[in-house]
Amino acid sequence: MRELSRHQELFSLNTATVRMQAPLDRIIEACAARGIGLIDPWRDQVQAVGLDKIGRQLRDAGIKLSGYCRGGFFTAADQAGLAAALEDNRRAIDEAVTLGAPCLVLVVGALPGALTGPPKSKDIGIARSQVRDGIAASLDYARTVGMPLAIEPLHPMQAAERACVNTLEQALDLCDALDPGRSGALGVALDAYHVWWDPKLSGQIERAGADRLLAYHVCDWLVPTKDLVNDRGMMGDGVIELRKLRGMVEAAGYKGAVEVELFSDAWWSQPMDDVLDTCMSRFKTVA
Amino acid sequence: MRELSRHQELFSLNTATVRMQAPLDRIIEACAARGIGLIDPWRDQVQAVGLDKIGRQLRDAGIKLSGYCRGGFFTAADQAGLAAALEDNRRAIDEAVTLGAPCLVLVVGALPGALTGPPKSKDIGIARSQVRDGIAASLDYARTVGMPLAIEPLHPMQAAERACVNTLEQALDLCDALDPGRSGALGVALDAYHVWWDPKLSGQIERAGADRLLAYHVCDWLVPTKDLVNDRGMMGDGVIELRKLRGMVEAAGYKGAVEVELFSDAWWSQPMDDVLDTCMSRFKTVA
Repeated sequence: MRELSRHQELFSLNTATVRMQAPLDRIIEACAARGIGLIDPWRDQVQAVGLDKIGRQLRDAGIKLSGYCRGGFFTAADQAGLAAALEDNRRAIDEAVTLGAPCLVLVVGALPGALTGPPKSKDIGIARSQVRDGIAASLDYARTVGMPLAIEPLHPMQAAERACVNTLEQALDLCDALDPGRSGALGVALDAYHVWWDPKLSGQIERAGADRLLAYHVCDWLVPTKDLVNDRGMMGDGVIELRKLRGMVEAAGYKGAVEVELFSDAWWSQPMDDVLDTCMSRFKTVA
Repeated sequence: MRELSRHQELFSLNTATVRMQAPLDRIIEACAARGIGLIDPWRDQVQAVGLDKIGRQLRDAGIKLSGYCRGGFFTAADQAGLAAALEDNRRAIDEAVTLGAPCLVLVVGALPGALTGPPKSKDIGIARSQVRDGIAASLDYARTVGMPLAIEPLHPMQAAERACVNTLEQALDLCDALDPGRSGALGVALDAYHVWWDPKLSGQIERAGADRLLAYHVCDWLVPTKDLVNDRGMMGDGVIELRKLRGMVEAAGYKGAVEVELFSDAWWSQPMDDVLDTCMSRFKTVA
């Protein structure tokens, strides 16, 4: 198992962690100043500054991506919506290529409309079937440009609004169905926050293996958790056995970055420098 | 599939639904006034009035139990805590016998101490093994007095504080391990709120069958959900396909009650009569 205190080069910042404090160009400056060599930016953050400008800034700073957030949201209430989702995923794949990301992370979507109001359908079975079709179609395109897709299973408490893929087993079943040859074109983004509770986690991480483990995200589960989305904890402040979990991931062959991703009203209200320093310090001592 | 609008006798009130409005004796009076013939009371509600008094009141009113809430919380940080938990479960089983419950519902417990403060251990694997041992020991006693135990898998968002059994599959694995003969002494309490998201739900309900399905609870999952514990929705106000789910449960052979259980700050702030009337009306039209 890798000793993170001696491997700062494995640290990656998911830039949503400080999205409320600064635009992406300033986040990248702060990363460069700290010697952070990896980030995972979100599309809206990139677009707010400009894709070309961010690309240049990253090249100039020698900062690479550990992933690109995010594609997905494949579900819709009608054919036009499904087609628009595919088109948007094609753009996301192209952006990921432009920025040199190793994978595009997929938050697959759930009941159509549920993120912003009453859902247009309650049928999670249909949503799951749309997700399968949407990944299959996006994978066809992603293969042509060499961009791996990483399905992120989201915590079951997000099953209505954000993602109807809710366990690692379910994500790996999709991978096996759509990429039976384990070509490397399709895998998973494993986030400790979403999966720590899963009684089948250990066996499924082993099943995933290095071929399927395309990204690994960390933060912590607070007790009590006060919000279903924006109350993630800093590593060490919650109950996830992060070292044990990373041990499983690395035993399965994962050699990539350890990406810190918090959505937290509490941490978003702190100065960016303090948050980044705390992330790096906890990465070394706890993650 | 049973048509609930013609089967009010299948309606059961989990009395936590109106726990903030009235003590249990008044809740029972209100149930009797409406012709409600089944309830599932909580131990603290019974104790606040007195076990004997509640027993008499139920007999006089001709009201029976669809379950008794709850046993469980088997996990602890030391041997004394584990022993105290077993002793408490023995008392819960005795009370369930006294009240003539068809089963004792088990909320199995999770990381010791996490419900009220920092957990004394973060090892969910140890918690799960304590739960298995606790159920096994309690089952030995429960068999001698003929009280079936119903393991309730709780939503994964409760895995730290309340229950480290988080899927129906996991609960059924425990049942198979501890009661391989499917004797009827051990089964599950299936609550739509906790399991609706599960991609394996349909197959696992079939696996459970009538032998293992000891109770069925309903409410609804709101979007957005604002609290991890006390923001359950009234049937019809959320996204769970309740009829489809009940169809699976009944196709598997379940013939018991449909128990309404809401923990909801919103509904707790409404008059008890309004809540009970709404529960019964939605039971007939939505559940």
